[in-house]
Amino acid sequence: MNKSLSPHKLSAASMARAIRRGEVTSEEIVRGSLEHAARSERVLRAWHALDADTALTQAARRDLEHRKGLLHGVPIAVKDLSDTADYDTSYGSPAYRGNRPAVDAACVAALRAAGAVILGKTATVEFGASRPCETTNPHNPNHTPGGSSAGSAAVVADCQVPLAIGTQTGGSIIRPASFCGVVGFKPTYGILSPGGTKSYAWSLDTVGGFANSVSDVSLLFDALRGAEKVTEISAGDQVPRVGIFLGPFKDVASSQAIARLIEVASICERNGATLCDIPAPTAFTYSLDWQRTISRYEMARSLLPEMLAFNESTLGSDLYGEIQASRLVSEGDYLRAKQGGFHLNEDLAQLFSDIDILLTLSVPGEAPLGLHSTGDATFCLSWSLVGMPTVNLPAGPGAGQLPLGIQLVGKRHHDETLLRFAAWVEHVINKVRKN
Amino acid sequence: MNKSLSPHKLSAASMARAIRRGEVTSEEIVRGSLEHAARSERVLRAWHALDADTALTQAARRDLEHRKGLLHGVPIAVKDLSDTADYDTSYGSPAYRGNRPAVDAACVAALRAAGAVILGKTATVEFGASRPCETTNPHNPNHTPGGSSAGSAAVVADCQVPLAIGTQTGGSIIRPASFCGVVGFKPTYGILSPGGTKSYAWSLDTVGGFANSVSDVSLLFDALRGAEKVTEISAGDQVPRVGIFLGPFKDVASSQAIARLIEVASICERNGATLCDIPAPTAFTYSLDWQRTISRYEMARSLLPEMLAFNESTLGSDLYGEIQASRLVSEGDYLRAKQGGFHLNEDLAQLFSDIDILLTLSVPGEAPLGLHSTGDATFCLSWSLVGMPTVNLPAGPGAGQLPLGIQLVGKRHHDETLLRFAAWVEHVINKVRKN
Repeated sequence: MNKSLSPHKLSAASMARAIRRGEVTSEEIVRGSLEHAARSERVLRAWHALDADTALTQAARRDLEHRKGLLHGVPIAVKDLSDTADYDTSYGSPAYRGNRPAVDAACVAALRAAGAVILGKTATVEFGASRPCETTNPHNPNHTPGGSSAGSAAVVADCQVPLAIGTQTGGSIIRPASFCGVVGFKPTYGILSPGGTKSYAWSLDTVGGFANSVSDVSLLFDALRGAEKVTEISAGDQVPRVGIFLGPFKDVASSQAIARLIEVASICERNGATLCDIPAPTAFTYSLDWQRTISRYEMARSLLPEMLAFNESTLGSDLYGEIQASRLVSEGDYLRAKQGGFHLNEDLAQLFSDIDILLTLSVPGEAPLGLHSTGDATFCLSWSLVGMPTVNLPAGPGAGQLPLGIQLVGKRHHDETLLRFAAWVEHVINKVRKN
Repeated sequence: MNKSLSPHKLSAASMARAIRRGEVTSEEIVRGSLEHAARSERVLRAWHALDADTALTQAARRDLEHRKGLLHGVPIAVKDLSDTADYDTSYGSPAYRGNRPAVDAACVAALRAAGAVILGKTATVEFGASRPCETTNPHNPNHTPGGSSAGSAAVVADCQVPLAIGTQTGGSIIRPASFCGVVGFKPTYGILSPGGTKSYAWSLDTVGGFANSVSDVSLLFDALRGAEKVTEISAGDQVPRVGIFLGPFKDVASSQAIARLIEVASICERNGATLCDIPAPTAFTYSLDWQRTISRYEMARSLLPEMLAFNESTLGSDLYGEIQASRLVSEGDYLRAKQGGFHLNEDLAQLFSDIDILLTLSVPGEAPLGLHSTGDATFCLSWSLVGMPTVNLPAGPGAGQLPLGIQLVGKRHHDETLLRFAAWVEHVINKVRKN
């Protein structure tokens, strides 16, 4: 155990190991997390629900038990779109204030089965896509942390907890990960159970998470899918074949974001990776429209129960209006968008015969000023549409001293390959940063 | 309005029209439904929750309102896997006795938005797949009604309500529809919101429903997907190109079920349809294993919250053991099964360049004796795996005086085409039966 760090700032892997070896207790770690959270919260406003007793009771129980699983005793933050039986679950909405689900969401249950301590629930944009929450960027409170998984990205960036659950329908994991400077991972669509996590657009919603390293986010993924053993993600001697993908929307990006992407590519090349430029498939141009069409058509149906049960003042007139407007998206357009996404996924999958990962932009640049908007998700939407797994890697600060990120994309159901090569890219970036 | 029928026995379309024209009130219809249900219930045991006040209050409100939608004032039964804010929702499990969700499931909200009256919640096999419920077959109480949507199929067969919601993961709509002698419709996977409906295997779970005619089940589908107008499903002069599909599991079927299928095919041919025999794609043989692998892998994760929250005696040792055993299905096998299903869907979709619908078996024969099992779902599993839309059509009684059914299968996302040609087949079958 690294004695120079407060135990709650250890990586999840080190933390689990230190607990297993009896070098630290879960209770000591959780106390550290809670104290840290209390110090940060006034400015960060990252928590929807956090209760010392609830968290410490779990930790004390873990300390008395035989080891349950991969994350025994490790505190984790859960985005408030997922049900928890011991914490109020409001899906970021005043309409659900005080809502206490009967049982945990499937992803939360998976963490409990792995022995994790659910520290609390993190703030989210309403239903993952509407009214922004009050969370601020840990690097500068005048800037957005991104959304919708704002609180989860922020508490991991602030090192309150090593791991947090997030979800993505458009850009809700990769965007806040980039803005907050943490590793974000959106797995392949459909690989993790959506049960008990509030649905916005069922064809796109994906559970994933945040950590401060690829190996930790991989450990989180292992726990979420119910793996019994830690997946080894060291790339060993293998170097990736990297496809650089700028695509048709690159004009949305800042020049420094593109420059950082090119820099990362050349770091990879210097370390032995092969590079090639990947032209976007023709249909890629339509991917933003398709993602939005699916998202709107489905949200109008997913949130219909809320529109019928709550009045406009509770839900917020923006959301109310958005549901109403989204009802106008035709089924024909919806089916064409789904079909488009399906074929685009096939076109993109073919690229992976020559490359291992795509290297692309996560977001247009640093986190924008202000909390009224969660920023631009242009570079995330297409990958959400096709359901391919993606990782955000922090790539150092930008001109405004806020994080820049790069996005790595893998083939559907090749999540482990993506994580393995993401760890390799992370390693070579970090080597440069340390020198 | 057909004066010879009790108003609650009208088709949903006639009922909606009669209410609109002021020929009958929703309250009169709902009273008829309630009285009929009360008479049948002692033997049929089809309802999980049914409350006259809750139903009549909705009906009285509909009678005072302007017309809301396609099903204004029409009573509908909802399978107890979908959340309802005004009825207890126990997912067929004693673990959830008295559970009252905060809001309706998305499918229930869609029905309310269409003006329907939710009459009550129908009995289901536990979580859609385990302990059978007590519902009996409306044609003979010593026989199973099938499952898991047992109550929904039974109350429609008993003409208590014209429409009911069901769900299918394996064979939970088509099997009870066939055993009870009603029209069952499982739409394309992913076309309707799964929000608020208890998840068992998220890659397979599909909301659908029951009616006593194809046009009524199409009206239900219109309401569920939020259509503003009734879809015209008359095939007009168009006759279908029918592919007869017996497939590799035909030895499971009774000879009378196969004979009835051939008879239906020849009725179609005599009425102008073109017929051809469709050989099963090679991979079809593996489809049962693939469906079961996906179902087991996912249920072990979907029901993990219940396994952690409730003890073995509440959940039932069978279910507990099944979840435990299903945790042993490997991720590798799961991903291979998903991949297999994906390619099988592509192979099957290609068949539809030469045909409009597949004609195949729904179940091996009449409903088996006894309530301990819900019968064999062999002929349903493959279509659930590939997510293609299917319809069960009643095809007259078998030797045991219980209904036989045939199954029609369409291409993914061509639900309307399937329903249109199913209406045609229904029409030609009924012409023969009347003569």
